[in-house]
Amino acid sequence: MAGNSFGQAFRITTAGESHGPGNVVIIDGCPSGIALSVDDLLFDLNRRRPGQSHLVTQRQESDVPEILAGVFEGRTTGTSLAILIRNEDQRSRDYNEIKDKYRPGHADYTYDAKYGFRDYRGGGRASARETVARVAAGVVAKKLIAEAFGGKVVGYVKQVGPIVARVDDPERVTLADVEAFPDGTPNLVRCPDRERAQEMIELIESVRKDQDSIGGVSEIVASNVPVGLGEPVFDKLKADLAKALFSLPAVLGVEYGVGFACATQRGSEHNDEFVAEESGTGVRRVVTRSNRHGGMLGGISSGMPIVLRAAIKPTSSLSREQRTVTNTGEGAIIRTKGRHDPCLLPRFVPIGEAMVAIVLADHYLRFRALRPA
Amino acid sequence: MAGNSFGQAFRITTAGESHGPGNVVIIDGCPSGIALSVDDLLFDLNRRRPGQSHLVTQRQESDVPEILAGVFEGRTTGTSLAILIRNEDQRSRDYNEIKDKYRPGHADYTYDAKYGFRDYRGGGRASARETVARVAAGVVAKKLIAEAFGGKVVGYVKQVGPIVARVDDPERVTLADVEAFPDGTPNLVRCPDRERAQEMIELIESVRKDQDSIGGVSEIVASNVPVGLGEPVFDKLKADLAKALFSLPAVLGVEYGVGFACATQRGSEHNDEFVAEESGTGVRRVVTRSNRHGGMLGGISSGMPIVLRAAIKPTSSLSREQRTVTNTGEGAIIRTKGRHDPCLLPRFVPIGEAMVAIVLADHYLRFRALRPA
Amino acid sequence: MAGNSFGQAFRITTAGESHGPGNVVIIDGCPSGIALSVDDLLFDLNRRRPGQSHLVTQRQESDVPEILAGVFEGRTTGTSLAILIRNEDQRSRDYNEIKDKYRPGHADYTYDAKYGFRDYRGGGRASARETVARVAAGVVAKKLIAEAFGGKVVGYVKQVGPIVARVDDPERVTLADVEAFPDGTPNLVRCPDRERAQEMIELIESVRKDQDSIGGVSEIVASNVPVGLGEPVFDKLKADLAKALFSLPAVLGVEYGVGFACATQRGSEHNDEFVAEESGTGVRRVVTRSNRHGGMLGGISSGMPIVLRAAIKPTSSLSREQRTVTNTGEGAIIRTKGRHDPCLLPRFVPIGEAMVAIVLADHYLRFRALRPA
Amino acid sequence: MAGNSFGQAFRITTAGESHGPGNVVIIDGCPSGIALSVDDLLFDLNRRRPGQSHLVTQRQESDVPEILAGVFEGRTTGTSLAILIRNEDQRSRDYNEIKDKYRPGHADYTYDAKYGFRDYRGGGRASARETVARVAAGVVAKKLIAEAFGGKVVGYVKQVGPIVARVDDPERVTLADVEAFPDGTPNLVRCPDRERAQEMIELIESVRKDQDSIGGVSEIVASNVPVGLGEPVFDKLKADLAKALFSLPAVLGVEYGVGFACATQRGSEHNDEFVAEESGTGVRRVVTRSNRHGGMLGGISSGMPIVLRAAIKPTSSLSREQRTVTNTGEGAIIRTKGRHDPCLLPRFVPIGEAMVAIVLADHYLRFRALRPA
Repeated sequence: MAGNSFGQAFRITTAGESHGPGNVVIIDGCPSGIALSVDDLLFDLNRRRPGQSHLVTQRQESDVPEILAGVFEGRTTGTSLAILIRNEDQRSRDYNEIKDKYRPGHADYTYDAKYGFRDYRGGGRASARETVARVAAGVVAKKLIAEAFGGKVVGYVKQVGPIVARVDDPERVTLADVEAFPDGTPNLVRCPDRERAQEMIELIESVRKDQDSIGGVSEIVASNVPVGLGEPVFDKLKADLAKALFSLPAVLGVEYGVGFACATQRGSEHNDEFVAEESGTGVRRVVTRSNRHGGMLGGISSGMPIVLRAAIKPTSSLSREQRTVTNTGEGAIIRTKGRHDPCLLPRFVPIGEAMVAIVLADHYLRFRALRPA
Repeated sequence: MAGNSFGQAFRITTAGESHGPGNVVIIDGCPSGIALSVDDLLFDLNRRRPGQSHLVTQRQESDVPEILAGVFEGRTTGTSLAILIRNEDQRSRDYNEIKDKYRPGHADYTYDAKYGFRDYRGGGRASARETVARVAAGVVAKKLIAEAFGGKVVGYVKQVGPIVARVDDPERVTLADVEAFPDGTPNLVRCPDRERAQEMIELIESVRKDQDSIGGVSEIVASNVPVGLGEPVFDKLKADLAKALFSLPAVLGVEYGVGFACATQRGSEHNDEFVAEESGTGVRRVVTRSNRHGGMLGGISSGMPIVLRAAIKPTSSLSREQRTVTNTGEGAIIRTKGRHDPCLLPRFVPIGEAMVAIVLADHYLRFRALRPA
Repeated sequence: MAGNSFGQAFRITTAGESHGPGNVVIIDGCPSGIALSVDDLLFDLNRRRPGQSHLVTQRQESDVPEILAGVFEGRTTGTSLAILIRNEDQRSRDYNEIKDKYRPGHADYTYDAKYGFRDYRGGGRASARETVARVAAGVVAKKLIAEAFGGKVVGYVKQVGPIVARVDDPERVTLADVEAFPDGTPNLVRCPDRERAQEMIELIESVRKDQDSIGGVSEIVASNVPVGLGEPVFDKLKADLAKALFSLPAVLGVEYGVGFACATQRGSEHNDEFVAEESGTGVRRVVTRSNRHGGMLGGISSGMPIVLRAAIKPTSSLSREQRTVTNTGEGAIIRTKGRHDPCLLPRFVPIGEAMVAIVLADHYLRFRALRPA
Repeated sequence: MAGNSFGQAFRITTAGESHGPGNVVIIDGCPSGIALSVDDLLFDLNRRRPGQSHLVTQRQESDVPEILAGVFEGRTTGTSLAILIRNEDQRSRDYNEIKDKYRPGHADYTYDAKYGFRDYRGGGRASARETVARVAAGVVAKKLIAEAFGGKVVGYVKQVGPIVARVDDPERVTLADVEAFPDGTPNLVRCPDRERAQEMIELIESVRKDQDSIGGVSEIVASNVPVGLGEPVFDKLKADLAKALFSLPAVLGVEYGVGFACATQRGSEHNDEFVAEESGTGVRRVVTRSNRHGGMLGGISSGMPIVLRAAIKPTSSLSREQRTVTNTGEGAIIRTKGRHDPCLLPRFVPIGEAMVAIVLADHYLRFRALRPA
């Protein structure tokens, strides 16, 4: 009820602040028998890690997790899993500025009003630092859906400021495309359209020089999802995915398939035609000729790729001066001297993927529970 | 887990199909002492009712609710409330066409795949008929938040096809503006911009003549919401509102404040400046000079109006021919002869409002539980 | 959170008062494809029905249920089921006596304190009338576990006052034994030990003549339960069963296997020895030679019969005078003139069985969700 | 759904095994502003600690907790709290015996059947070691209820084997009485009846010499509980308390007030008479002259002390030989060489108290949410 848990059958619960001892996640409902190691966790934790490139915050965290419970002889036991990621770079810096002043765009004011006081060190629980625990849980979810149905979740940066990547077939984008260019150069901005990626990097660098920040859009695609995930009415798959994405800091919009563009479409343009497809093994399966619906019909997965986009606002922390008030209502000027990302998009990708994977893992287990008697 | 409940402290559970005996909602967690009558329920039920104008489906339902439990001597008892709305217009028509064919854009195929069979009469549980139970529950939620903090939820149609209403100050739109024009003429399309409203009506009429349908966008505003509703991390207010909206049929996108437009903004353009405002009684309160954030910061209500928009796809049922397959994978032609809305927007308004009110009622009770010791 | 729902995967939500329009249950999470009719429901509803014999309350209710949703062509659809049982015998009698006076042993005082007022007609929501909805849901649960694993739940009266039935092998007691004696005479008290049954009937009749009531113990046995139901730690099967039983009115104690007698046992006397048993098909399965543990080890079903007992207090309503206070704190004398059971045990049997079946159905679905990947 | 969380508004989630790195609890829903230190936690952790006396297991654990999150400047922040207690005494001993053999009375067999394999080191997640996390959470719950309503939970040993303590007024037993005798001697067995306590100690010592174990009963009393806690129907306070107690290892019975003795009582003997009492400040409050009901009526706290008893089976691990089978179904002899308690009762007291306090904290927050509008 206090909002630190997510999911029903595959359920994660997190705790941790930006500058406390660390962040911990308990995963309840992971079936037994899944191979899991610290190295498995490190892959996505490194994709999310601060300091990974000059485009992101320079906070230094190794983010090496410790598995506290739930794994025995390299496999999950079926009982609750706990993973701890300690905070390391907790500079004993002067927090007095943000202690009393409300940073525009941040949760400082709403936390103070809600709780009567707050852990002001770097945003406390409201810091995006908490997403480290989600990414660790996302690795477990990814392993579960991969084993269970070959499920795959790939996210990438679709837009930074006015620069929009061209991605003709979202389903074909691979993790490799997102992480590196064909020549092996790291894809620092995680945009699979190389030309636009370069423009995005230049824009982010320029924005940072201006002591400013910039927004963008991330697209996430889940493929190999079986038909039938999602529950009618309130727990539609699109509803739970949206909740998952909007539970992330800075997300101001989510859309599926054609998304907001559906507003100007007619039914005859929008509806996707059903066709029967001969699969390799001669079994007929029903698919749609196009995927304007984004992979869910009636809130239930249709077997087509799930395609969604999340709009991410520009980072709220700015090195330049902003006007605000103090907690006693006095006018004030604030400059956020700390380390922050000029654009949240590159690090958002593994975080968004994690949330999508967690929802799919959850709905897969729910599907197992509720399938026909 | 099977998705027919929503909310945690103020929790609704529904059952009912399009052509079964009726739809029922149980509301658990409504505090005692709230005045509630059938007439209270009828107001919004009538706004949602089929057959209310020539713009909407001509299915005839009186939608008079029966309060089965939870009200004594005109007031809620604090124990669970149950409301039943019977179905009346269940034409004993030939359903054979949709029995075997998958209607494009509908849940016929996904339900068949998930459950092994389905109630094919008018969509069964996947029909928008189920929203009648939500609207009844929404009335109770609206009464609760009005009594508790003067909370008000007003929705309207912002866009139909390419026609976008001009609404300068969303917070000032009243229920009266939405339901009727200043001269008392009913506002059939529920768009407060009269000129655009007329254009929208003409567009809807023309689309219907084409045996087609059209999408749109609804904007919903919640005002007088106190600071502090919403929980950090997973149950952010924006996350629960988004889940609520996306749990409705046909919603393909949701955004807050500037929404997707944030992608092209810089932090210095996007952030809303905090200022201290002298209230009437001399108390200082913190507000923001602008409301690009849409009323929530860190996922917690900021005291500014909550402003959101939902993108609604064009009605899937079309009177014109569409190509599809049968449940045995044979190609087929389908024409939906039944009664359906050429545009979902006018009837969406009370439904969207209901979901927003339910989320606010829920988070208000959660706020009471978790406020500082 | 307001306590009108029970279960997680197989989840029931109820509403209804003693003298309102009726009682309704929504069952969420029942898999599709289970045959269900009004007649199926009537069997246990009749076992619970008031007026079924001279031993129980003479309130007249036909308790014929209406299935409002979730069944199509005689089978469950997989979406939410709703069942309504209307109240009929709502005598327009003078409630003024209990309106202002707190009946000893009842919830009148605690409801008034909690809610500020109460539906005083026959106890309102606190009346055992609410169990009619549980029994309807229990029928669905019994059908589910019977289909899924041949699961069977049989309850009976073990003790009334000082009279304790002799039941040598709880697992062998059948529904037939409980409902009638070998000669076909109805077993009004639902005790399978015929001699003690006769004594119990005489005791109940004598207690009623004294305008008094009497307590007792019911024993419930679940058999054919597969190994592995129940979750470690908080949702142990014994924990959820106990919650289910204690959620019923008048239950003051619950115990499993040897129960409270374990306090005087040594480990060497108490532990049940494991042995391997050749099943009919030559498969070896592990069983225990004795069943002092009551069918659960570590909170998880062991495959042995689950045996539990619930202690039921004497009916609180008495026709004789009792001393109490009014809601303004004045001393008063109260006599409950209404119709009530002199002993709750005979009608408790189907109610207790229903709750056990609901827990098993729930844990069976949870088991399906969480079984090894 | 996998059972590692408990509570709704005040909700704890735990992870950890007997011989893994440690045990962790996340507490979600603790209001902000409660003072909390490691020392606060240590008090009850020490009461539960192995090795505290010669009567209990000699496993050596310092059980010093680390607060990982949720406390800032010595007070709870209102966001999720995490506490880690590392395991220290994880002897690298030969587990081969229990690896393949099913210990009678333990969860070895049911875990193997459920999960396909198990962490066999000392019982893994099924070990009573997991209760260390509950006791830490219980300290937070005790602080919350003490601040909120002066709530107090005191448990003690009522019975060991045939020795039953005489406790005339359960409400008057203090923590001091339970922890030490009037002369300051530590009360190793936690029984407030000194004479019986001495007999219990002798019995436990003798049982241990016999390489055997012994059961018992613990009584727990909660006082100063306000009227109105607990929800009607399924979440009755007695139901949630029973679930809490039965979720503990080795509990085979729970009863309230007169408990199972109600079976032989008549209503006229059992019902507690209401009387109005002048409080110190002249306010009249309603109480009952006796407390056979055990502090709850209709499942809702009546304002009288809550009195419950739990029956605890004799420790399953025995140093003497027991017959059993291996995981391949072969007959075998087992002797548990490890360290274990000959009687669970002395260490049960703080564990049982913790669970009662957690339920009261949860229902108190729920009460705040749902009180009259």
